Amino acid sequence: MAGRKVGIVGTGAVGATAAYSLVMMGSCEEIVLFDIVEGVAQGKAIDMGQAAHYSPKGTKVTAVKSAAEMKDCDIVVITAGVPRKGEMTRADLLMINAKIMKNVVDDVAKNSPDAIIICVSNPLDVMTYVIHKMTGWERNRIIGMAGALDGARMAYQIYQTLGYGLTQTGDLVIGDHGQNMIPLPSKVQVGSVNASELLTQEQMEQIIERTKNGGAEIVKHLGTSGYYGPGRAVAHMVEAILDNSRIVVSSSVLLQGEYGYSDVCVGVPVVLGRNGVEEIIQIDLDEETQAKFKISVESIQDNINILIENKFFE
Amino acid sequence: MAGRKVGIVGTGAVGATAAYSLVMMGSCEEIVLFDIVEGVAQGKAIDMGQAAHYSPKGTKVTAVKSAAEMKDCDIVVITAGVPRKGEMTRADLLMINAKIMKNVVDDVAKNSPDAIIICVSNPLDVMTYVIHKMTGWERNRIIGMAGALDGARMAYQIYQTLGYGLTQTGDLVIGDHGQNMIPLPSKVQVGSVNASELLTQEQMEQIIERTKNGGAEIVKHLGTSGYYGPGRAVAHMVEAILDNSRIVVSSSVLLQGEYGYSDVCVGVPVVLGRNGVEEIIQIDLDEETQAKFKISVESIQDNINILIENKFFE
Amino acid sequence: MAGRKVGIVGTGAVGATAAYSLVMMGSCEEIVLFDIVEGVAQGKAIDMGQAAHYSPKGTKVTAVKSAAEMKDCDIVVITAGVPRKGEMTRADLLMINAKIMKNVVDDVAKNSPDAIIICVSNPLDVMTYVIHKMTGWERNRIIGMAGALDGARMAYQIYQTLGYGLTQTGDLVIGDHGQNMIPLPSKVQVGSVNASELLTQEQMEQIIERTKNGGAEIVKHLGTSGYYGPGRAVAHMVEAILDNSRIVVSSSVLLQGEYGYSDVCVGVPVVLGRNGVEEIIQIDLDEETQAKFKISVESIQDNINILIENKFFE
Amino acid sequence: MAGRKVGIVGTGAVGATAAYSLVMMGSCEEIVLFDIVEGVAQGKAIDMGQAAHYSPKGTKVTAVKSAAEMKDCDIVVITAGVPRKGEMTRADLLMINAKIMKNVVDDVAKNSPDAIIICVSNPLDVMTYVIHKMTGWERNRIIGMAGALDGARMAYQIYQTLGYGLTQTGDLVIGDHGQNMIPLPSKVQVGSVNASELLTQEQMEQIIERTKNGGAEIVKHLGTSGYYGPGRAVAHMVEAILDNSRIVVSSSVLLQGEYGYSDVCVGVPVVLGRNGVEEIIQIDLDEETQAKFKISVESIQDNINILIENKFFE
Repeated sequence: MAGRKVGIVGTGAVGATAAYSLVMMGSCEEIVLFDIVEGVAQGKAIDMGQAAHYSPKGTKVTAVKSAAEMKDCDIVVITAGVPRKGEMTRADLLMINAKIMKNVVDDVAKNSPDAIIICVSNPLDVMTYVIHKMTGWERNRIIGMAGALDGARMAYQIYQTLGYGLTQTGDLVIGDHGQNMIPLPSKVQVGSVNASELLTQEQMEQIIERTKNGGAEIVKHLGTSGYYGPGRAVAHMVEAILDNSRIVVSSSVLLQGEYGYSDVCVGVPVVLGRNGVEEIIQIDLDEETQAKFKISVESIQDNINILIENKFFE
Repeated sequence: MAGRKVGIVGTGAVGATAAYSLVMMGSCEEIVLFDIVEGVAQGKAIDMGQAAHYSPKGTKVTAVKSAAEMKDCDIVVITAGVPRKGEMTRADLLMINAKIMKNVVDDVAKNSPDAIIICVSNPLDVMTYVIHKMTGWERNRIIGMAGALDGARMAYQIYQTLGYGLTQTGDLVIGDHGQNMIPLPSKVQVGSVNASELLTQEQMEQIIERTKNGGAEIVKHLGTSGYYGPGRAVAHMVEAILDNSRIVVSSSVLLQGEYGYSDVCVGVPVVLGRNGVEEIIQIDLDEETQAKFKISVESIQDNINILIENKFFE
Repeated sequence: MAGRKVGIVGTGAVGATAAYSLVMMGSCEEIVLFDIVEGVAQGKAIDMGQAAHYSPKGTKVTAVKSAAEMKDCDIVVITAGVPRKGEMTRADLLMINAKIMKNVVDDVAKNSPDAIIICVSNPLDVMTYVIHKMTGWERNRIIGMAGALDGARMAYQIYQTLGYGLTQTGDLVIGDHGQNMIPLPSKVQVGSVNASELLTQEQMEQIIERTKNGGAEIVKHLGTSGYYGPGRAVAHMVEAILDNSRIVVSSSVLLQGEYGYSDVCVGVPVVLGRNGVEEIIQIDLDEETQAKFKISVESIQDNINILIENKFFE
Repeated sequence: MAGRKVGIVGTGAVGATAAYSLVMMGSCEEIVLFDIVEGVAQGKAIDMGQAAHYSPKGTKVTAVKSAAEMKDCDIVVITAGVPRKGEMTRADLLMINAKIMKNVVDDVAKNSPDAIIICVSNPLDVMTYVIHKMTGWERNRIIGMAGALDGARMAYQIYQTLGYGLTQTGDLVIGDHGQNMIPLPSKVQVGSVNASELLTQEQMEQIIERTKNGGAEIVKHLGTSGYYGPGRAVAHMVEAILDNSRIVVSSSVLLQGEYGYSDVCVGVPVVLGRNGVEEIIQIDLDEETQAKFKISVESIQDNINILIENKFFE
């Protein structure tokens, strides 16, 4: 019987919350934390390990001091990367994070050669693409966490409006994990009832707007980005894969013809299971949504092109 | 702080499985079992009480020897009733079970005057109606368990066809809990994806057929009716009410104008919460479904009329 | 990533309750049921599969028509066997069940060669021993379910006396899973408090007596044996192994010198994990308990000797 | 049916982790956050509310802008207070935090007059005492969170040594929640086996030392105090009370003669249930432990005396 070991690279608030969520739910046997900042992974591993006394499975939480020590994980979650700072251009940021990603991925590919990778680093779709290029792995094994969070944010907005069905509300957000994301409240249901029968057009437009600003609203209040939503969304994907529960989760995946695009990572609904992406589901998009999806894809391709122009892939 | 106490009247396989499910999930503080057959409730209470050593909350399970001892429950689940036997006419059966129901309901109304009642006895919609008439309670407090089971059976059939999304599949079955039930696979989703985009017309028709035969198929194999599906469906409703989780569950409720009908209990989607039925959701039905719904309602009214003709309500 | 597949041989009330418990808790990916009585496994698989719509992981439940179709399980639970009937001698019963066990074990060894076996068939310790002899497997992979149930029954009795701590009460019962079982309330704790500081000597003696009669008391009320306690206890062991949670559970295991005995299966505390029995814990027994343990062991050896005399192992 | 509403006063890392844990486990219906720092409670409420899409019950999380808006909670968790800074004397710190506590408690007593209060503010035992004096409530309704955390830290240290039984290990730590805390590894069990049979004397001494330094070790690595352990320990107590699960948890409570002391709050094992402290359990302490307990109590009384001398209670 194989173990169920999850590695987390980058134990800032999102990575750590993902780990803590897995401990609390008893989702896996062992969690290994790594962070380049000395001590952070160690301190959080001890803290979570103590909390695990009250967890359902007594999950083992350890920390390693180098990425090379994180071995034979079934899943590796990558949250590494820096945020944009004052004088950085977008191209600067892209190159910096892509290089960080490259180092991380080299370590993962060497030490957990059979892992499934969940990318949480930003810009999400581009970094997911970078991992594909760096590893050369089959596409089902590399998945970007995007719609799992954006969809939860949309479901939250629908719940704020209706007052019921938070756990039953569809979470379909496709496109890029950024300014051009495409929340689709008109296509989801609340407990088998079409949201479009429950919400006015105006309410749906507000929900779309608030979903897109979901992250920014938290920053406004808190001063930093949210981490409970993102951490829990990562845990949702990890559980689906480890349990092979074969559920539909919008995720950033490498398209190879689906939806009319290739060689780009973008968010679409997929079935998650033991093999990572078990299936890419092609839903019918109306013309308006197709046009939005095109903008999303192109914004990602623009960023990929910056990396190409800067000879990152050479 | 109030307790969370659930009474189960009738601890045959369905009632007992409902109770065991609640123990395993830690859904309530205390479960009280009652059965007219001497010893059954006692034996099962001890057996479940021992299993509760491994339950999350150490739920207390007790048995009472008379319905009068079942006091101050927050929810009472009624599974009492007899099956149709050889020489009984349908009218005979209706009168027998309605009389059983009357006795049970008198006890419940006296001893748990603030309870919410979940009716599981058959014929389901009629017995739910009988409880309304017997208690005279506000309609939100009396709910028939129908769509929670039939919907699970439809979701199972969809999962058998697709191979993914069992927990994410819509469970919309409306109408009566009998021959004329109306499974609506074309209206549900699998993880935010329309089932109608995933299934062929032929597959949907098979799913409808198999859902309607869901109970009979189990009887064919097992020789008796299923109880895991029904018991778990009851527990789903109990949890939604106790937790005030405000989720949508198709249930048999007393219509007062909704969907164009009054003074009849029939299955439609409702929001379940602390007050029982928090809201009746009126979904758009196409003409074909409206016609089917009419047949459903009339079949229930026919049974109610038998009771009226036999002067049951006088 | 490997699957987590559990086979259940014998889907009477205990086997089926174990399976249903695993579905409800989301303990594994897939459950395969088999029963020699045509239809039983099929009917229950469908029924549970429908209940699984409300389970946390959407566990897949299937039934097979022959033991040979139950393949590549991580754990196989064996509940097969017949109860003693009117004219059977104890020797007759032993031979009949040992032969049933032989057939089952041949199938398991062939089709799930890497499985861990949990034996639930009675007489428990002898049948566990038979499986050891039939397979020749390493002893860690064959475990009898005994103390997990008897201990839950003792914890229940302590809880009935104290009124608190049901989930926190120690469940140490050693020796054989029969008349000579040794409940040890004086050695356990209730939430870090010694039970012996909370209970009088008289209360402890009553608890011992009631624990030993735990099964019989249910039969008295119910007419048949309990199944919630036993089914849940099986699920407790399955979870510990699949999750590698490395918890202490009294179980019937093959001794090889521990406690001063060899070549006999008897209940002692062990650590359960991925490899089945990860460790046998040798606790200090006072002289009185050592004497009782000797009687337990000898009663099991007597039964093994009947099989030897009847040339079962030749 | 009453709601299950938990208020958290102070949404720093510990308070917020407690809240998130409750959301993830579905422990209550509603959580209300309050923090004096503008925006923090609001941002975290939104973030957790979005995570709640994936929670079992869809827990509602809201934030209030003034303590007066936090109404009718069943439980209020208080984490408010400041840490000691450079020039503060111990007396300064005590007076500052006691005054903060006074304000908070006034609000709680006014707006949630039937609540049970869990105190998490430091110095823990003294602040718990302050709450007693300020409210004048019955002692069962005011409980300090101490042993739930320190005990988890001891269990973690035992697990680090043994490698099994993390969730099954006793967590008995009594005395004050500070330098003189009394971890009792020699008195606990690991799954019904005495820890003293599994650990050497030297190992137990190390475990005691490491338990007492459990918090400091995390600070050393992380630069700030741990919050997963404390937050989860709070959630453990909240669940026990809301579920009326009647489990034993070491907690700081007001003694009135128990263990030979009165009018002081200090950590001892208690039964937690619907009424808060349902019972104070008096365990047998050997002479050495009695002497240590005396030192603990006196250290707390010294601090209470500082408040008295500074006329805090006048």
